Amino acid sequence: MQIHRVQELFKQSPVGQRIAVCGWVRTRRDAKNNFSFLEINDGSCLKNLQVIADGALENYETDVKKLGTGSSVRVEGVVVASQGKEQAIEIKAERVHVYGFSPEDFPLQKKRHGFDYLRTIGHLRPRTNTFGAVTRIRHTLSMAVHDFFRSRGFFYVQTPIITANDCEGAGEMFQVTTLDLDKPPRTPEGKIDYARDFFGRRTSLTVSGQLEGETYAMALGNIYTFGPTFRAENSNTTRHLAEFWMIEPEMAFADLDHNAFIAEEFLKHVIRAVLEQNQDDLHLLDSFVQKGLKESLQNIVAGPFARMTYTEAVEILEKSGQKFEYPAKWGSSLQTEHERYLTEVHLKRPVILTDYPKDFTAFYMRLNDDKKTVRNMDVLVPQIGEIIGGSQREERYDVLLERMQEAGLKPEDYAFYLDLRKYGTAPHAGFGLGFERLVLLCTGMGNIRDVIPFPRTPGHCEF
Amino acid sequence: MQIHRVQELFKQSPVGQRIAVCGWVRTRRDAKNNFSFLEINDGSCLKNLQVIADGALENYETDVKKLGTGSSVRVEGVVVASQGKEQAIEIKAERVHVYGFSPEDFPLQKKRHGFDYLRTIGHLRPRTNTFGAVTRIRHTLSMAVHDFFRSRGFFYVQTPIITANDCEGAGEMFQVTTLDLDKPPRTPEGKIDYARDFFGRRTSLTVSGQLEGETYAMALGNIYTFGPTFRAENSNTTRHLAEFWMIEPEMAFADLDHNAFIAEEFLKHVIRAVLEQNQDDLHLLDSFVQKGLKESLQNIVAGPFARMTYTEAVEILEKSGQKFEYPAKWGSSLQTEHERYLTEVHLKRPVILTDYPKDFTAFYMRLNDDKKTVRNMDVLVPQIGEIIGGSQREERYDVLLERMQEAGLKPEDYAFYLDLRKYGTAPHAGFGLGFERLVLLCTGMGNIRDVIPFPRTPGHCEF
Repeated sequence: MQIHRVQELFKQSPVGQRIAVCGWVRTRRDAKNNFSFLEINDGSCLKNLQVIADGALENYETDVKKLGTGSSVRVEGVVVASQGKEQAIEIKAERVHVYGFSPEDFPLQKKRHGFDYLRTIGHLRPRTNTFGAVTRIRHTLSMAVHDFFRSRGFFYVQTPIITANDCEGAGEMFQVTTLDLDKPPRTPEGKIDYARDFFGRRTSLTVSGQLEGETYAMALGNIYTFGPTFRAENSNTTRHLAEFWMIEPEMAFADLDHNAFIAEEFLKHVIRAVLEQNQDDLHLLDSFVQKGLKESLQNIVAGPFARMTYTEAVEILEKSGQKFEYPAKWGSSLQTEHERYLTEVHLKRPVILTDYPKDFTAFYMRLNDDKKTVRNMDVLVPQIGEIIGGSQREERYDVLLERMQEAGLKPEDYAFYLDLRKYGTAPHAGFGLGFERLVLLCTGMGNIRDVIPFPRTPGHCEF
Repeated sequence: MQIHRVQELFKQSPVGQRIAVCGWVRTRRDAKNNFSFLEINDGSCLKNLQVIADGALENYETDVKKLGTGSSVRVEGVVVASQGKEQAIEIKAERVHVYGFSPEDFPLQKKRHGFDYLRTIGHLRPRTNTFGAVTRIRHTLSMAVHDFFRSRGFFYVQTPIITANDCEGAGEMFQVTTLDLDKPPRTPEGKIDYARDFFGRRTSLTVSGQLEGETYAMALGNIYTFGPTFRAENSNTTRHLAEFWMIEPEMAFADLDHNAFIAEEFLKHVIRAVLEQNQDDLHLLDSFVQKGLKESLQNIVAGPFARMTYTEAVEILEKSGQKFEYPAKWGSSLQTEHERYLTEVHLKRPVILTDYPKDFTAFYMRLNDDKKTVRNMDVLVPQIGEIIGGSQREERYDVLLERMQEAGLKPEDYAFYLDLRKYGTAPHAGFGLGFERLVLLCTGMGNIRDVIPFPRTPGHCEF
């Protein structure tokens, strides 16, 4: 007999059919008249399937009445219309096979557990309603990322994880080595002899696939990456992970306007996918994790994002009469309080800010004619703040070289990157999005450690 | 004016329309009567778009006649039916804007270059026909992987890259650290003090996401991973990479038969996607890289894979009368020569071999009742050999514990994995597939370094 997934059964309501279902018991309730209700979850959706197991089953006393939370079963029976209000169908069991009981010390008994505690049992937390919902939404978002780019003719490119570049000096890096730390080989001068490391040089984990991605955009046109990136920063916040997934599209023959257009379309596309495909999961998270989650997502997709330059934003902040901890000033970074004022108070919608002062931006961002600002953008959304950062890239060889030297980079380390400007250069642009920030936005979860299966943070590398 | 991609233009043949195309010049050919042919490639497909640029263009002498291979242009003009046989349409240019010339030292002049040489210019090689084709096929395969699992209710799960486990002791691992190799902190006993490393313990790059994947399968039912994995092995062969992408599905309530069924369906699905979506690319590779490529792919999808046990395979090899370098013998690993004989000579089709001797298999594979073999499988295809390895997992707590101890593993290091057998255990199964091996199979390329954008091998970590 084919095994049915609970989600299918709720969709198809095949009343009268004999079916088989496998899953884990969430609760067992024994009724007075010698029968029991089992709530079965198989992870395919939030909802449990109710099973009626009565005393006539040959293993009713020996097995069924011993089923505790977390036990795994295979149920064969007939789909019947449910008399309860909670669900349309239930199963009248003809056979209940127990694969595995779950002892009473099973850590997920039927009560709500704190997220801090659940983090210590990362291998079991996906069996809870909340983490099941987060996992399914994360899946929907992953698929929507690929769908969005594929349907627009982008090619998926896997850029390297181990690298000898440090991109933009964007962050602290993890070293990757096969040297014996206890007795590393040394050069005659006494330095670590990286010529004898696995790759014959010092290597690290990537902080961004952008530079490598650009080489493929300058051949294939439109590409995107979707892979893990790393920061060895000692940031113990609810927004930082040492290992996280990043999405980085790069488009040849595109300027910043097109980049901003694609970023807005992209964000709306993936959020709409969750609104359409994860209604039960969203309802749960809206009810128990973040009130108003669904409405805030609907607001993002409802209308156009605002557009303004950094300079305009600073003027608005200066004129706002708002007391900020750090007064907004042209030439300074925008603080979270500034970003929130713009999106939540002043505009009440997402905004794409462009053309920041060059002094706190990366060397590869295209210099504007004013020589003071660059052709970059940040997409800010209410409550979350910056979710996407991007830029038109500097396509002029001489200007790029000068910016590199200003930034203290050695051009010879970036010869491949300069080659893209030497041979058939073209305007191009791209952006980056931390995938877990997007999952935070779409789940309403408060801690980024709870939206990735096995979080890596300072002092934590469990499982 | 909207920029059109060359692929769209060939699909739609919008004769008479004014369009814009951006791309790189592959060749320029000057005709006698004061006009030139430009072959433009934008990476969207293998085919070039032919542009007719005549002397009436205002920049014909100053720009067009200087366009060399590799230059980037924007062409605006009218689509006309082509008089040549090579293509259905071409563009009569009304404007040719040059974004960037390409000096004569551009390394990809119009001639065939050796793959060894192209590997040294990994940032430019995607601009060649071969590497463009490989990149597009790799993209098709990536999308087909996600499509296959999504359509069957599998959830995509991102398992961790940095890990404190060593999975099955499957291979040499890269160490990940933020300690100063020159002066690492030491304990009072003089050992490296990993308590002061970033994660407070010794960490490495993952060799497999399987064990973590199982934790999600035992909650969500069917999951798969698709991410980078690593081996710090000093293998300088055409089949080994230090960094490669792996696909690992895991299914709860599944036995080995179902596992083999899904593996066969999977392989056929992704190969069919390439046969359907990359006809021009395949034709190129079939013509210039591996004769017979397309036919060998068609053979894989044409009929059912054979099934036999390891024991049956050894009997066939023993009776074959074939002279092998290493005679086949029960209890020994199958060599490539054995695998090739089975798929290419004896069966002439792919085969799924099952139930290998437990002595050379991993601890987590389910022990058969004979206590000598395990419930595992290898999928072998002609020419490539093993492409998929998998097993039904040992779901019995006591048996697993014993196998761990036999393998010299400390059960306390795998407490989370044992928990899956303690709380609601269930039969489950899964397999793993090295993505680059799949790309090799589908492109006919001879060296695995040429099917990943930036290969990492001993001594090589460029870009």
